[in-house]
Amino acid sequence: MTSSNDPEYVAIDVTSKMGVLDEATCVELLESTPIGRIGFSTDGELLVLPINFRWYEHSVVFRTLEGHKLAAAAEQQHVCFEVDHWDADTRTGWSVVVQGVAHEVTHWAEEARLDDLGLIPWARAEWRPIWVRIEPTMISGRVLR
Amino acid sequence: MTSSNDPEYVAIDVTSKMGVLDEATCVELLESTPIGRIGFSTDGELLVLPINFRWYEHSVVFRTLEGHKLAAAAEQQHVCFEVDHWDADTRTGWSVVVQGVAHEVTHWAEEARLDDLGLIPWARAEWRPIWVRIEPTMISGRVLR
Repeated sequence: MTSSNDPEYVAIDVTSKMGVLDEATCVELLESTPIGRIGFSTDGELLVLPINFRWYEHSVVFRTLEGHKLAAAAEQQHVCFEVDHWDADTRTGWSVVVQGVAHEVTHWAEEARLDDLGLIPWARAEWRPIWVRIEPTMISGRVLR
Repeated sequence: MTSSNDPEYVAIDVTSKMGVLDEATCVELLESTPIGRIGFSTDGELLVLPINFRWYEHSVVFRTLEGHKLAAAAEQQHVCFEVDHWDADTRTGWSVVVQGVAHEVTHWAEEARLDDLGLIPWARAEWRPIWVRIEPTMISGRVLR
């Protein structure tokens, strides 16, 4: 792993070493992870909520419900999406952060393609008709090993 | 499990049912989880980053480094902290969200107590001298089972 200029990641003689992940690796991890967390603002407060998602056409896509807090994330706002995996025994793991702009998918053809993805919300308490897409402006990843 | 009035959690006949966790259960989960994610604002952008933390005296505490992005979270700002655990096979899991105010711990006696906690940052690439404490204004939890 390479160390960056970020002081957080200066490598000295330590047990766990922090490294930077390249974008291709970040995308592989996004493709293979079912749950992430979205950070967004709503009613002047900041929220971080878990969502099950797909990485599709270089975007994060997920489903939500009209009127739910998550629908606020779809109002063309800058959001941050995060996935990670950790092993408490070895104190190793990785995280990928996607900063981007969220918007509701309203074009019927795009909606139809997304419906064909077969992404079933884990919480199937109610049908979630709204598709939200986060278009990345920045993707970054870190690994501890 | 009780269902809330939130439309996200209306219970119908489904595989995974969403429920609300009481605060005592949220606290137990916070006590037993080593890694969470903090959502905060810095330089006008929203970030979600993983941190290893402790639940201590009804607060989230963690260590960071002067000059690191996370230090921005310590400037008495409203932040959101999240922990979760998921099982992709059964599509079950839980999440706890702590909204609160973050500030740097500057009182020497409190710093000393926190140093005695023995919280060693997983990324020991550099000594992290700054303690940050998130005092909760709201704790909420959800379970999918």
